[in-house]
Amino acid sequence: MALANIRIVMVETSHPGNIGAAARAMKNMGLSDLCLVRPRDFPSAEATARASGADDVLSAAQVCDSLEQAIADCQLVVGASARDRWVTWPELTARACAETLWPQLETSRIAIVFGREHSGLTNSELDLCQYLLRIPCNSEFSSLNVGAAVQVVAYEFFQAATAEARAAASLSDPASGEEMESFFRHLRQTLFDIGFFHATKSGPSLMRRLRRLFHRARLEKKEVHMLRGILSQMQIRLERLNAE
Amino acid sequence: MALANIRIVMVETSHPGNIGAAARAMKNMGLSDLCLVRPRDFPSAEATARASGADDVLSAAQVCDSLEQAIADCQLVVGASARDRWVTWPELTARACAETLWPQLETSRIAIVFGREHSGLTNSELDLCQYLLRIPCNSEFSSLNVGAAVQVVAYEFFQAATAEARAAASLSDPASGEEMESFFRHLRQTLFDIGFFHATKSGPSLMRRLRRLFHRARLEKKEVHMLRGILSQMQIRLERLNAE
Repeated sequence: MALANIRIVMVETSHPGNIGAAARAMKNMGLSDLCLVRPRDFPSAEATARASGADDVLSAAQVCDSLEQAIADCQLVVGASARDRWVTWPELTARACAETLWPQLETSRIAIVFGREHSGLTNSELDLCQYLLRIPCNSEFSSLNVGAAVQVVAYEFFQAATAEARAAASLSDPASGEEMESFFRHLRQTLFDIGFFHATKSGPSLMRRLRRLFHRARLEKKEVHMLRGILSQMQIRLERLNAE
Repeated sequence: MALANIRIVMVETSHPGNIGAAARAMKNMGLSDLCLVRPRDFPSAEATARASGADDVLSAAQVCDSLEQAIADCQLVVGASARDRWVTWPELTARACAETLWPQLETSRIAIVFGREHSGLTNSELDLCQYLLRIPCNSEFSSLNVGAAVQVVAYEFFQAATAEARAAASLSDPASGEEMESFFRHLRQTLFDIGFFHATKSGPSLMRRLRRLFHRARLEKKEVHMLRGILSQMQIRLERLNAE
């Protein structure tokens, strides 16, 4: 299960209650790999109380001396951050992060790093991250509790897992990139054959708009086959008429 | 702002910390209307501490004696529930709830009701709800902390608000139902003209598959115009050849 490849890393958490809340949130969403970098107070009765049944996640948690150590065996590192930064890291929303990185979880371990309650992550900690994750929220009150932030991120990964499973079921056989390109070449040729490019004088921008439209529809193999059947029939018809 | 029309109702919350966490989660996501039905301990220093700057939401919170009173001026009532029920209410996931109900927030006040920490909502409380909201999660550990549940639901409504604004900006001018139907009639006629229905003997199911594909792409007016331009050019070309 790909969710097992997500590691939640909490850096210098002050309140043990937040560690417990994060553990519960993780288990609720099928995550289990928790790593704590220099927690102020851990293990703690308060963490266990707030974990409320996710004690297995707490007791399996690694405790590390440094963020470097916590992410040593991860292929990808994402830093959660609410603050605007002077230096701009590539930024993903929580949803985009889950949807974009989901496929990589098949083969990679991904660390998602959460900073201190009051000051988040330092810039030198963010230097260890490939992406910055931001939870979109009220710009006038933008600091989420760290346990709540773990909840939202874990929730988004669980949703991506579910959506992935659902999409795999409903879109049983998506067209490959090569099949889409063959389709676009066929479409372009047919538009030449019927004289549409000549008529509109807008070949490149027209093709760009058609590509955008059909990519957005995320075609199945069968649909590409059907559309190309229509294009072929049109070409056959024109050839026959031309030959008459 | 439509988010102001969402009321979060918490029924018989035991731990004041959860009320504070809910207030903070609400303010993070632009919500402000909190109603507490028979809270065990409120106002409370612990609630204020956990609200962490969302004290305005706490101090404006209404305290009610009954759920009926809390929802009296709401047009729609949604009950959050983790348990499977014997009687089945119409059920929405958190995301579907936000996306489906969002348009109604323009004109209606919607209550989202969260139950007790250990036992949720009773069936007679659910009788007051039109929908049941479920947060998809690990089926083997499915009880979220109530503050975390408020966080996820508030987050989904904020995302729906953002997506709504974004979709309005990017899909500036979606095609109307009538324009889509005219397009499908035009497409169908063109497929007859080129002899495709004859060639495949599968008119109705073919049109159904084409409708599904183009509906999925959610066409803009300009795109419908472009596609119909292609169909017209094809028809003109055939007519000219036929006339030669």
